[in-house]
Amino acid sequence: MRVNLKPIATVRNGVTDDVDDWDKVTSRLIFEREWVDGLYKLGRFDHVLVIFGFHRKRGVKLRVHPRHDPSKPLVGVFASRSPRRPNKLGLTRVELLSVRGNVVTVQGLDAYDGSPVFDVKPPLDEIDY
Amino acid sequence: MRVNLKPIATVRNGVTDDVDDWDKVTSRLIFEREWVDGLYKLGRFDHVLVIFGFHRKRGVKLRVHPRHDPSKPLVGVFASRSPRRPNKLGLTRVELLSVRGNVVTVQGLDAYDGSPVFDVKPPLDEIDY
Repeated sequence: MRVNLKPIATVRNGVTDDVDDWDKVTSRLIFEREWVDGLYKLGRFDHVLVIFGFHRKRGVKLRVHPRHDPSKPLVGVFASRSPRRPNKLGLTRVELLSVRGNVVTVQGLDAYDGSPVFDVKPPLDEIDY
Repeated sequence: MRVNLKPIATVRNGVTDDVDDWDKVTSRLIFEREWVDGLYKLGRFDHVLVIFGFHRKRGVKLRVHPRHDPSKPLVGVFASRSPRRPNKLGLTRVELLSVRGNVVTVQGLDAYDGSPVFDVKPPLDEIDY
């Protein structure tokens, strides 16, 4: 059984290669118009969880050295946050800067320009309803 | 652009309907054999993040009452954890009970029996490498 995902938004940040400090990167998530109403009240949160695709990564490495550091012992890919994983899903908690129309601006997303976004969720520790 | 996901595992917990307290539910994630090597060293974690599919939910509701409570004001689906969301992806931090062969046993996963699992990741606050 395969499951088809359709991106709900696309990352725009001009980043085309790895950067030293993703925390400093500001990204705009450009939402498809059909989903804009789903952003209602998102702006109340300080952070959001973003599920996105490592769309430029190819192949899977089942065992990896954490943080690309060969001095660190190998771990399985599911015990790591390596992007070379089955289904190539990324998950990052980012700072929410603004929600305006179909544009959600966040800081700290470790995604290249053009990455597909599959979901945005509020962090449970910030839900107060 | 659509993206094809292939489940890496299937949830087995005998749960076929909503339960009052998902925290008490123990689930076995039965991994496809091809990915078992990726579980190496996963057992060192106390918790894991599971990305899974709300495979039995149909339709999308762009505005929802949190926790199905009509007395709570409507919020957008991305400001909620409602399963009736685009792409139907669930994300839950669960307690990791054991990793044996292709079976990962967890507690607290709010997924029905048969749900597809798309990724398992270690929580960043437990990564010590």
